[in-house]
Amino acid sequence: MSEINPAFVLQSIKNVSFENREVPKLRDEWDVRVHIEQTGICGSDVHYWQRGRIGDFILESPIVLGHESSGTVVEVGSKVKNVRVGDRVAIEPGVPCRHCNFCRSGSYNLCADTVFAATPPWDGTLQKYYIVAGDYCYPLPAHLNAEDGALCEPVAVAVQICKVAELKGGQTVLVLGCGPIGVLCQAVAKAYGASKVIGVDLSKSRCEFAKDFAADGVHLVEKSSNEGVDPVDASRALGEKIVKEFGLGEGADVVLECTGAEPCIQAGIFAARKGGTYVQAGMGKENVVFPITTACIRALNIKGSIRYSIGCYPEAVALIGSGKINPSKLITHRFQFEQAEEAFELVKAGGENTLKVIIQGVK
Amino acid sequence: MSEINPAFVLQSIKNVSFENREVPKLRDEWDVRVHIEQTGICGSDVHYWQRGRIGDFILESPIVLGHESSGTVVEVGSKVKNVRVGDRVAIEPGVPCRHCNFCRSGSYNLCADTVFAATPPWDGTLQKYYIVAGDYCYPLPAHLNAEDGALCEPVAVAVQICKVAELKGGQTVLVLGCGPIGVLCQAVAKAYGASKVIGVDLSKSRCEFAKDFAADGVHLVEKSSNEGVDPVDASRALGEKIVKEFGLGEGADVVLECTGAEPCIQAGIFAARKGGTYVQAGMGKENVVFPITTACIRALNIKGSIRYSIGCYPEAVALIGSGKINPSKLITHRFQFEQAEEAFELVKAGGENTLKVIIQGVK
Amino acid sequence: MSEINPAFVLQSIKNVSFENREVPKLRDEWDVRVHIEQTGICGSDVHYWQRGRIGDFILESPIVLGHESSGTVVEVGSKVKNVRVGDRVAIEPGVPCRHCNFCRSGSYNLCADTVFAATPPWDGTLQKYYIVAGDYCYPLPAHLNAEDGALCEPVAVAVQICKVAELKGGQTVLVLGCGPIGVLCQAVAKAYGASKVIGVDLSKSRCEFAKDFAADGVHLVEKSSNEGVDPVDASRALGEKIVKEFGLGEGADVVLECTGAEPCIQAGIFAARKGGTYVQAGMGKENVVFPITTACIRALNIKGSIRYSIGCYPEAVALIGSGKINPSKLITHRFQFEQAEEAFELVKAGGENTLKVIIQGVK
Amino acid sequence: MSEINPAFVLQSIKNVSFENREVPKLRDEWDVRVHIEQTGICGSDVHYWQRGRIGDFILESPIVLGHESSGTVVEVGSKVKNVRVGDRVAIEPGVPCRHCNFCRSGSYNLCADTVFAATPPWDGTLQKYYIVAGDYCYPLPAHLNAEDGALCEPVAVAVQICKVAELKGGQTVLVLGCGPIGVLCQAVAKAYGASKVIGVDLSKSRCEFAKDFAADGVHLVEKSSNEGVDPVDASRALGEKIVKEFGLGEGADVVLECTGAEPCIQAGIFAARKGGTYVQAGMGKENVVFPITTACIRALNIKGSIRYSIGCYPEAVALIGSGKINPSKLITHRFQFEQAEEAFELVKAGGENTLKVIIQGVK
Repeated sequence: MSEINPAFVLQSIKNVSFENREVPKLRDEWDVRVHIEQTGICGSDVHYWQRGRIGDFILESPIVLGHESSGTVVEVGSKVKNVRVGDRVAIEPGVPCRHCNFCRSGSYNLCADTVFAATPPWDGTLQKYYIVAGDYCYPLPAHLNAEDGALCEPVAVAVQICKVAELKGGQTVLVLGCGPIGVLCQAVAKAYGASKVIGVDLSKSRCEFAKDFAADGVHLVEKSSNEGVDPVDASRALGEKIVKEFGLGEGADVVLECTGAEPCIQAGIFAARKGGTYVQAGMGKENVVFPITTACIRALNIKGSIRYSIGCYPEAVALIGSGKINPSKLITHRFQFEQAEEAFELVKAGGENTLKVIIQGVK
Repeated sequence: MSEINPAFVLQSIKNVSFENREVPKLRDEWDVRVHIEQTGICGSDVHYWQRGRIGDFILESPIVLGHESSGTVVEVGSKVKNVRVGDRVAIEPGVPCRHCNFCRSGSYNLCADTVFAATPPWDGTLQKYYIVAGDYCYPLPAHLNAEDGALCEPVAVAVQICKVAELKGGQTVLVLGCGPIGVLCQAVAKAYGASKVIGVDLSKSRCEFAKDFAADGVHLVEKSSNEGVDPVDASRALGEKIVKEFGLGEGADVVLECTGAEPCIQAGIFAARKGGTYVQAGMGKENVVFPITTACIRALNIKGSIRYSIGCYPEAVALIGSGKINPSKLITHRFQFEQAEEAFELVKAGGENTLKVIIQGVK
Repeated sequence: MSEINPAFVLQSIKNVSFENREVPKLRDEWDVRVHIEQTGICGSDVHYWQRGRIGDFILESPIVLGHESSGTVVEVGSKVKNVRVGDRVAIEPGVPCRHCNFCRSGSYNLCADTVFAATPPWDGTLQKYYIVAGDYCYPLPAHLNAEDGALCEPVAVAVQICKVAELKGGQTVLVLGCGPIGVLCQAVAKAYGASKVIGVDLSKSRCEFAKDFAADGVHLVEKSSNEGVDPVDASRALGEKIVKEFGLGEGADVVLECTGAEPCIQAGIFAARKGGTYVQAGMGKENVVFPITTACIRALNIKGSIRYSIGCYPEAVALIGSGKINPSKLITHRFQFEQAEEAFELVKAGGENTLKVIIQGVK
Repeated sequence: MSEINPAFVLQSIKNVSFENREVPKLRDEWDVRVHIEQTGICGSDVHYWQRGRIGDFILESPIVLGHESSGTVVEVGSKVKNVRVGDRVAIEPGVPCRHCNFCRSGSYNLCADTVFAATPPWDGTLQKYYIVAGDYCYPLPAHLNAEDGALCEPVAVAVQICKVAELKGGQTVLVLGCGPIGVLCQAVAKAYGASKVIGVDLSKSRCEFAKDFAADGVHLVEKSSNEGVDPVDASRALGEKIVKEFGLGEGADVVLECTGAEPCIQAGIFAARKGGTYVQAGMGKENVVFPITTACIRALNIKGSIRYSIGCYPEAVALIGSGKINPSKLITHRFQFEQAEEAFELVKAGGENTLKVIIQGVK
């Protein structure tokens, strides 16, 4: 009698169910099998559930959801060197092809053939067992738990954003957004010696959390009428107001945009100093009205950040392990595996006090 | 009886006249006085003439026009080491303050206190004599003439754009625009070992010139109706069409935007490969609809280029001196100093066959 | 009756005396006059005193000693914007020419015409009043004292070393040397998020200080006989031992060499990981036996660091002001101005417990 | 009856012989089998033949020699996308593990588990058929022949050296050595827009070849007695002489050391300008006397270059394909496969007029 492998499956748009799938097998000698212990829910999971697509990734057949996971290694292929059976690991959810120019040049986050958990047509981690390449598993130090391991994923996203920004000690950093990625960017920037880190959000509770968590200062954006005001002028005013409020001189050295919201994008450009760096990490509308002449005249460096690259996961483990970042403070709700749909509903609702929701795996 | 110093002065919007001003004096021991020999006309000169302002620079009192000039040194301050009386030089028109953080960090193009020729309130070079810091004059080799010297200015602009792009040998380069800056960028890119350089323009004659001058290929944009088509979709189609037409694989390694036109900006982003570099050098509308999600997902490096920085002028002199670039091919019209207004009218008219117009100085 | 200006003057090799010089005057409108309050003694001061030269800088006429100073601004030139009379400031001791290519490109530390305090033929700061360019003075926050201000100098040296190393958060850093510059490099590296910082020294007391000050671990080098052992083999063994002892994997990401001692240079190269960075900051023998093939095969990045560049002093002020670095812990001895020679004798003696010696200025 | 696969085998030190081995099989679905057509001989092949080791690579069992090869693809694995049966290809001889941190970060040249042709214990290409990963084969344009394909190897080495140097258009480049790698570095530097490229060698014929091939100037080092002269002083004098002879101002922007000879290494350091870049590519003695203080004071960037990284082979193909580099001019001697030992003897002898020796494959 074969072992069971319960899975939480997105069958079609807005339609999820539990299945008992076969225990998956290693695909080659570099693979490992992990018994999943904790899985955080991310906006993209909810997006696939509700809309069935993100960009060119379209749900055409059922997939298991979930991609922010940790677990214990239960089987290893013959060529795996870095982990052993029994290791508790954080799982990097995207394994690239290793053969294209992006992979070979160290930009594996840009590989078009990446097998990424819970991105159609690939199954995710909300199942008992998950197969992944051994080198995409990162052992956790003994004093970290499985929740810490699952939260390595958003920490790794924040590490990549700061890496793309080429953040250096002593810089001033403005972070648009105080959601999970925003506050983790703030924490990473502080850990890396930023002299001043400012968070911005529309939500009072998120601003308060950010201030407690890592930011030196936060700016709560007031929902004003702005009637008759040109929206870009309003964004410019917001950017300039923040620069002045926090004594950022001619502007922030580094701006990290973690919302994808049009007014935040605009305000971020106006809040960057001449020669400064702006990283686009948040995703919202495909196209926005953008102050291109300001970007040109100020000789800004504007960069996109997507997923993670080499070193992000180890660094996430190290930052959590050293106590410099404690991402479990972000967890507002915990669920059992059987409550997965309830957990997803909660994230969909997006209440003021919902920050990070996590689901315990099947024992 | 004092020597005369004829000058071509912008008195107020649309109102120019000739004046006989005093011969200017060195301001300190680092200055030199140059007898101006040739001056190219640039779009910004015409812009001040017609509209009286560019961004925050507003014409409030008369200024001498002109900033693309060469001449012969006729007087040197006691501390000047690099040039001597009798040297024929190209003049870098913006001398920064040397004391602010931008100057001290090597980004003198961002100095807010730069004295820039023909930018209010500073006088330009369309006069017999011009005072400038000695280290902002660059001696020309004997085989270059004064026209070559004047054209060092747009070549230096192109060198800076390629420097900002961190252009490397072997890259593919797409240049939006085949005006003077566009074709010079194409030529610099070729001189630096770009494997394929493609120019794009709306003008047939400009495309033809670009093909003859330096580009490996050119794309003439057809004015289509695009009725009912989303403008960004049209730009995406244009970008993708160019990539396919010239075999640029997943997109160009480097995109240099030298028009400032909204559709070109959009097409340029869509034509850049993942991880590629896009430089905004052209200036048009303050704000444009911008494919920010594509920029993010493709992890683009988007940079603004403005003016020139250290090394651009020497490199312009070297590129012209070695014969790698021959900018005098761009000159379509030559005028005497007394015909300056006529020259400006010609540039304003912007005919198909007007590329670079140059004015000979007072003898 | 003119005000007095007592000065501590190096008349010739090993020959110092006190003089009452004239109060110095501003040289131009960018200068300020500072009433010196505290001055740290540096090895180079002692070197000039004892040997009269360092490299091409040769004592040919008397100079005032001292270059690590703070004080209060008592006079400002008309163009000075950043400081006012009454400001307490740290003084960057080298003011470059502002006109050469190094200055214009942001590498002012390489300017050959720098006026550097206490470097022949330029007078230093061990006098009541010192003239310096206003933009090379950095106001101290109110909670810092004049000792903190004087110690900005070695902190700025350490900041430059880390800047040259392009230190990033999460890296492992090996610092050869636990003298003032070594321990300050360790502290800067920690402040910038280094994951592990290891110090190495021959002195037990210096190692202990380093461990208390900032390092995660220290290695005390034992003076062994090494008889019959090839010196480079011994250095390789030392480097590999340190890597193993502190779990640095395949080697340190970054090695900062702050001694200039031949065995340390060699050990540092062997302790760097493939693709890692090694910065030479210490100066000893002109030429050393160097493992060049290892440097080649490991694709190391080896860089020299000298003096400071833009941003180092402001960052030193910020690091001290924020409490991230407390350099006054380095001070082991304090002297009055009249005891200057005694202070120099103490530094020359170089005892185990002498780390930083500081001299109070004339009131 | 199985097809034959003749091979030229290094059995033990100084002991080679021909064998008829089995036709090798694809190891996995990413592999291809290539029918070898041309193979250049490299110093390292001769080194293994004569001494049986280079660094940690020690000949312990027989290996096939040869690693600079081209050929025709005769079999492809099911996952290979970039080449097809019948394609004529250049073969990159080192295929890395794809799973270590170096591979994942784009530094695959540093991978410790690389399977490198003719490096113990791995067989090389001097056999009829060779198995290699498909993505390490690069199709040649139709107008290139198999000799061009084989010579992609040394061109790729030169491309990597220039890439490590971060060579930019307009720089001055000094290349120590006018052997195959030296002259190819000179050619790549010229192709990338270097303003002046100078070669240095002890051999008159090599200097003459370099001048004809690509260099703007060459310096023939005279074998002088130098009796009583400190060797480092002599090297400094050589470096300074070259700088003066070719008008390199304060020193070369970029120095590429392609000899590994101690005096060249020293001269190269002294010939680099302050803030310049020096790349160590040649390998000779393990340790050399090195002017470390000069490297420090001049703030040099010293980097090791080893093998090739992503893009080097495609760029080599492109440079040859475009006619910018014609490496077949380097070929001084051609041999049939059966004459392989004779070819090796010739390279070992190292005559003045032997530059590149190439062996035709088995038909």
